[in-house]
Amino acid sequence: MQFHHHGYVTTDPRIQPAQGVGLHRPADVPDEVDLLIVGAGPAGMLLAAQMSQYPTISTRLVERRPGRLEMGQADGIQARSVETFCAFGFAERVIAEAYHLTAMNFWATDPADPTRIVRTQRTVDDPYGFSEFPHLIINQARILDYFAEAAAYGPGRITPDYGHELVGLKVLDGEHPVEVTLRRTAGEDTGRERTVRARYVVGADGARSAVREALGMRLEGTQAMHAWAVMDALTVTDFPDIRTKCQVQTPYGGIQLIPREGGFLYRMYVDLGEVDPDDRGAVRSTTVEAAIAKANQILHPYTLDVRDVPWYSVYEVGHRLTPRFDDVPAEEVGARAPRVFIAGDACHTHSAKAGQGMNVSMQDTFNLGWKLGQVLTGRSPESLLETYHTERAEVARNLIDFDREWSEMLTKDPAQIPPDELADFYLRTAEFPAGFMTHYKPSMVTGDAVHQHLAAGFPIGKRFKSAPVVRVADANPVHLGHHARADGRWRIYAFADGAHPTSSPGLGEWAAWMRTPPTPR
Amino acid sequence: MQFHHHGYVTTDPRIQPAQGVGLHRPADVPDEVDLLIVGAGPAGMLLAAQMSQYPTISTRLVERRPGRLEMGQADGIQARSVETFCAFGFAERVIAEAYHLTAMNFWATDPADPTRIVRTQRTVDDPYGFSEFPHLIINQARILDYFAEAAAYGPGRITPDYGHELVGLKVLDGEHPVEVTLRRTAGEDTGRERTVRARYVVGADGARSAVREALGMRLEGTQAMHAWAVMDALTVTDFPDIRTKCQVQTPYGGIQLIPREGGFLYRMYVDLGEVDPDDRGAVRSTTVEAAIAKANQILHPYTLDVRDVPWYSVYEVGHRLTPRFDDVPAEEVGARAPRVFIAGDACHTHSAKAGQGMNVSMQDTFNLGWKLGQVLTGRSPESLLETYHTERAEVARNLIDFDREWSEMLTKDPAQIPPDELADFYLRTAEFPAGFMTHYKPSMVTGDAVHQHLAAGFPIGKRFKSAPVVRVADANPVHLGHHARADGRWRIYAFADGAHPTSSPGLGEWAAWMRTPPTPR
Repeated sequence: MQFHHHGYVTTDPRIQPAQGVGLHRPADVPDEVDLLIVGAGPAGMLLAAQMSQYPTISTRLVERRPGRLEMGQADGIQARSVETFCAFGFAERVIAEAYHLTAMNFWATDPADPTRIVRTQRTVDDPYGFSEFPHLIINQARILDYFAEAAAYGPGRITPDYGHELVGLKVLDGEHPVEVTLRRTAGEDTGRERTVRARYVVGADGARSAVREALGMRLEGTQAMHAWAVMDALTVTDFPDIRTKCQVQTPYGGIQLIPREGGFLYRMYVDLGEVDPDDRGAVRSTTVEAAIAKANQILHPYTLDVRDVPWYSVYEVGHRLTPRFDDVPAEEVGARAPRVFIAGDACHTHSAKAGQGMNVSMQDTFNLGWKLGQVLTGRSPESLLETYHTERAEVARNLIDFDREWSEMLTKDPAQIPPDELADFYLRTAEFPAGFMTHYKPSMVTGDAVHQHLAAGFPIGKRFKSAPVVRVADANPVHLGHHARADGRWRIYAFADGAHPTSSPGLGEWAAWMRTPPTPR
Repeated sequence: MQFHHHGYVTTDPRIQPAQGVGLHRPADVPDEVDLLIVGAGPAGMLLAAQMSQYPTISTRLVERRPGRLEMGQADGIQARSVETFCAFGFAERVIAEAYHLTAMNFWATDPADPTRIVRTQRTVDDPYGFSEFPHLIINQARILDYFAEAAAYGPGRITPDYGHELVGLKVLDGEHPVEVTLRRTAGEDTGRERTVRARYVVGADGARSAVREALGMRLEGTQAMHAWAVMDALTVTDFPDIRTKCQVQTPYGGIQLIPREGGFLYRMYVDLGEVDPDDRGAVRSTTVEAAIAKANQILHPYTLDVRDVPWYSVYEVGHRLTPRFDDVPAEEVGARAPRVFIAGDACHTHSAKAGQGMNVSMQDTFNLGWKLGQVLTGRSPESLLETYHTERAEVARNLIDFDREWSEMLTKDPAQIPPDELADFYLRTAEFPAGFMTHYKPSMVTGDAVHQHLAAGFPIGKRFKSAPVVRVADANPVHLGHHARADGRWRIYAFADGAHPTSSPGLGEWAAWMRTPPTPR
């Protein structure tokens, strides 16, 4: 029983009353929708949760898979993502079930005895206190579960439409200019195709994005691919840091160890090196036994007696980026508003070594969702949507630069790098992988720095860093930022310039100005 | 996806694998059960959640109501209860949705102007840091939801059997000596009776307990009843402390204000005084309008413009206690083990003013649950069950004494009590209502104080107070006490007497002793 201004709500307060399109949601995807999301990964599901807060907007999410994801690959959750989960109301539950990553240790060949490794450095995970939230390890499947709940419990009552694959997309004219062809991938109708018209389409459909291909765009970048063997393992070992994230560098290669949630398994990345351009996928046949043997060689004198490997994969990855994050070619920007967007792996691919993929993908659609909400509810002009590409493409470029630098360091022969360089780099750049270096430039939604001196601690264009405060009304110690929910509302934080509001002429004048309707232009 | 020693669990890790009786749970109450719980209030539901951790024990819970509680009356959750929720795995979720009670303010008639009230004292809620958990306000219905989830997700998969009323109980002989007559209160079979045999029965069926009556026991104590009008209200007011818990004392009477979860409503107790023994329930006809008028008189010069009252009740209460908490008469204690127990309001009633009812009731069955588990799984002798009465009856006596003293203070004419006495008493006795004064005496499960000096900060017989520690394996700051789950296991905390275990002969010797099987007697 929750007590609200309209009386009692007797069930889980996380279940908001259905409104608008959430009241009589059709079982099938309608012929016309306002927004069609393609792909139920982290980027797509966050967007569904966000759009569920706009029950006047008809939003559907189609996904190729027949149902809920059972096993995901991504697992690193940076503190910025946990802040985002807080805005969607489930941070405390993820925190309760995840592994907490508070330290990273570095190991390397002992200069005094090159047959063995020694611990060279211990680093604290968030040495500068970027966030009050922890850095977590938890599988992507669980994050999708929580976003699915937020989408289903929001007023729009959005649930994914599983078993639909996008096979065609054209931008035409009219109220619903995007024509999409969907094909059923499951059920009785498997193979049947139909068309759906949408005002906007977001392709969050992964590195092989069909939306991106329909727009005629490719992931561009280096041809060089790097390969890793990755496994989740249950192991008997004498390696003392098995429950701490570790980077191990030796002349035989490197390993990254990451403990997993649940307390038993750990994830191990074994470096398989640069892939020969003529390899033609041969590296993918690397056996789990070979990867374990290599890991034992690297970890000597410690040993891994691997008892179970519930998940194993070999992957190759390059650093690639699409030129645009929407359907407007560079030469037409400003002449027409975008109608199709791509997000997440559909726009940028990189290594998993800095634990960025899922995090940056979610921030892509966290950036886009409220803008679509503003435009589709008539509160903002369409041109607002142009800022999605401007803001997020720069983040993706920075990510790829960072990841390239970090990945190259991790694959160097440790004899060629000074002993503390890895740890120094890790600490020096910590704000980036934690998710807090995103700094949007002045635009129609971000002011310039003219008045920055009035709030030097809150850089304009960066996320609002929370601070512990005491709420006057009930003497509760609360976190200022945790009250900003992802509900599509704007928030104003007014810091009074006097000890008491009534003695604060600046705040009083501002309040009077806010109450005065603008003079019609 | 959660990672466990046996591999992947792809769903919510809170859902434990079903085992034992949880695998093929009959839809109807079987003719024979190990344990029958009567009543799905806080005491009964906690016990169901606890017993679900013992999947070899057949446990059923019968409840008169046809389904889930929609509106409960109790709402105060002391920090000790939140500790208990932590042991059942849902503390963080309750904390996220509840109102946090961090302060209590006292108001009284202004000596300088008896027509108005003034704030006389502000007190901090947990001034001594008894617990790292907060003091909360949240409705009982939500607490029952969380216990229901824990019971359903535990290996025993216990769900309440709604629509069954207990109409008879006899203690006979045999393996299942307690014969219970149940009557259907809902569905097609309404009115149909049947008998069920149980090894043990727990009556958590409230102040009008049918189990207690079947044992021939009464709640004994003062005949004097005190009456309160209580409402949840939505109000426009200029009273500045409307979002802080307040006690207001005037010659016209007193009010207690408690803000509610959700941010809009507050609960208000208006003192209606001692009930005339010849009243015959007339006080219960006090209208909500009369209660609001009285509240406005007390709060003058502030006003309450009450816009909505979603819940209103008048209740009378006395301070009463049963002589025994089990079915063994005092003269037979030690000669036979108890077979029937009563808990919560079935054993003790008192005012709601100290916010104790739900909390003490839950601790009753938290005390009893693991003992039933130990005995029914053959790990402990039946005599362990005698400690339930010994331990909990004393707590109930202390509670009634405390509540009587506090209630009497709250109904005194403020002119007759020194200005700071209320706040002083509130602070001085704070450990009691927070739930941490419970101190069990030496018994078969509690050692005497011979070795108390070895751990002066952990009084033997009190709850294990948690402390923040750093876990060596993964450098995680964790709370020592939060790892003790209500899973029926015993825990040993060994504090080494040296800097390193290998240099700690005491700990080493103890470990060697633990590894040595006892010599057969």
